[in-house]
Amino acid sequence: MKATVYVTIKENVLDPKGSAVQGALHSLGFDEVSKVRIGKYLELDLDTNDRAAAEIRIKEMCELLLANTVIEDYRYELA
Amino acid sequence: MKATVYVTIKENVLDPKGSAVQGALHSLGFDEVSKVRIGKYLELDLDTNDRAAAEIRIKEMCELLLANTVIEDYRYELA
Repeated sequence: MKATVYVTIKENVLDPKGSAVQGALHSLGFDEVSKVRIGKYLELDLDTNDRAAAEIRIKEMCELLLANTVIEDYRYELA
Repeated sequence: MKATVYVTIKENVLDPKGSAVQGALHSLGFDEVSKVRIGKYLELDLDTNDRAAAEIRIKEMCELLLANTVIEDYRYELA
């Protein structure tokens, strides 16, 4: 089973990387870019076919390691 | 208009970060994880309603800055 996890910085938290990329895009002439938010995108292969169990385990992985839940949000998709 | 860009390491390129996360997950007891690939997930707000132009510009942004096309692939969605 394949899990896709998206980890993004919470809306009210400053995103210095995003601001840096926005500045770089502006310096390259892409002035139409008004905001940039950067996050992590993870693809995990899981050796299981039990969807319910995978859902619980993915949440645990996110809470324990993949996301810093103080400043980050996460969501996932199972396929 | 909102653009979402996914930048991932090419399949045949080693992903040291992914391997490190996989090792960490195993040490936390998540042995069912057989592979981890880590990429970037970007959300960009564009001050334009011209979808065709936005499509061209996003490609340019990816080629010039957001992705290292030697070792990374990118795809995007416009909403």
